[in-house]
Amino acid sequence: MHDDQEVAVLRLGHRPGRDERMTTHVGLTARALGADRVLFPDNAGQSLETVADITDRFGGPFEVELTDSPNAVIRGWDGRVVHLTMYGERIQDVEGDIRSAHRDEGEPLLLVVGSEKVAFDVYEAADWNVGVTNQPHSEVAGLAVFLDRLFEGRELEREWVGADRRVIPMETGKRVEPADGNGETDENEETGGDGETGGDGETDDNGPESA
Amino acid sequence: MHDDQEVAVLRLGHRPGRDERMTTHVGLTARALGADRVLFPDNAGQSLETVADITDRFGGPFEVELTDSPNAVIRGWDGRVVHLTMYGERIQDVEGDIRSAHRDEGEPLLLVVGSEKVAFDVYEAADWNVGVTNQPHSEVAGLAVFLDRLFEGRELEREWVGADRRVIPMETGKRVEPADGNGETDENEETGGDGETGGDGETDDNGPESA
Repeated sequence: MHDDQEVAVLRLGHRPGRDERMTTHVGLTARALGADRVLFPDNAGQSLETVADITDRFGGPFEVELTDSPNAVIRGWDGRVVHLTMYGERIQDVEGDIRSAHRDEGEPLLLVVGSEKVAFDVYEAADWNVGVTNQPHSEVAGLAVFLDRLFEGRELEREWVGADRRVIPMETGKRVEPADGNGETDENEETGGDGETGGDGETDDNGPESA
Repeated sequence: MHDDQEVAVLRLGHRPGRDERMTTHVGLTARALGADRVLFPDNAGQSLETVADITDRFGGPFEVELTDSPNAVIRGWDGRVVHLTMYGERIQDVEGDIRSAHRDEGEPLLLVVGSEKVAFDVYEAADWNVGVTNQPHSEVAGLAVFLDRLFEGRELEREWVGADRRVIPMETGKRVEPADGNGETDENEETGGDGETGGDGETDDNGPESA
């Protein structure tokens, strides 16, 4: 993010159909919460398209790519590797070291997020195996909390480049303006598009601004 | 959580099949990150079963319920209502007020998390409409960051009651012990169950401890 060294997110494993929304949400969460890039397995082309489309409309910089060898990405990473897993060390115990490696030592970070069973190789290749709690929950939730803590909230102040629209924070209702600020307003759900934090960018009624 | 006033999460909207995993992840994230209870729409029985099963195995206290009238839950809530939406006020601007209402004024909180298009009534009924960024991403990510900030990390220190197993944080590998501490260990993925932060509690290879 900004002038920091790169933070990339690698999604391990993707079962087309079953994992489409989770993989898409991993990508959109990475983008919204300050990562620079997400890498999906090469059978996740549909999720890639959704994330690229959101980036076109809501801005970047953010890259989304497919890889045919996630393991090679891990092995070849020039920086530190963090694997998010419920079996790992407690985030509150290791986040300071990780932040220091990234911010002070200038190490690019690769955040590995599992889906199906993760091979033991990944645990061994990681510089840190980190648990956002040691409870089973959601890879999307784990990634979100990790990024918010890594950046200590600075990601919430990020400015977006190349957007064609911008959501204006409101106490009540919805307001979307062209990113150049010419003032198209859109203050209720009849005329406004959808896109709750529940929006997942898919082109249906749950997608942002599909109206 | 603990001695605080209740924090409940209400999932709005559920399309069986399509939303099963997202609704399950909302419930598991609520549980893992310090909420006391989650309410699902009454067609989300499968997600309820998964969350109840995880609570049986990994501990509580945590309640999961179905409701046939989410709107009545909002209208009848005796406390404050927070609606998470990308159109809302910035979390960094309002989290202090919400924390103060909950912790200092002792107000129970209802966190409303959307799925499909959210009716304007919900925006009006909420005491706060809150955006975890004003970008489209994931209701699971938004809920996770909100809870971590609401509790200021205290949820990570929570102790679990009534669990039959406990994950021991490890630098590398996996270790699960009976909750009474008798030392069943389980240090590699061949014999250990799965359950990455990617685990969603379903009874397949992505589910926690399915082995």
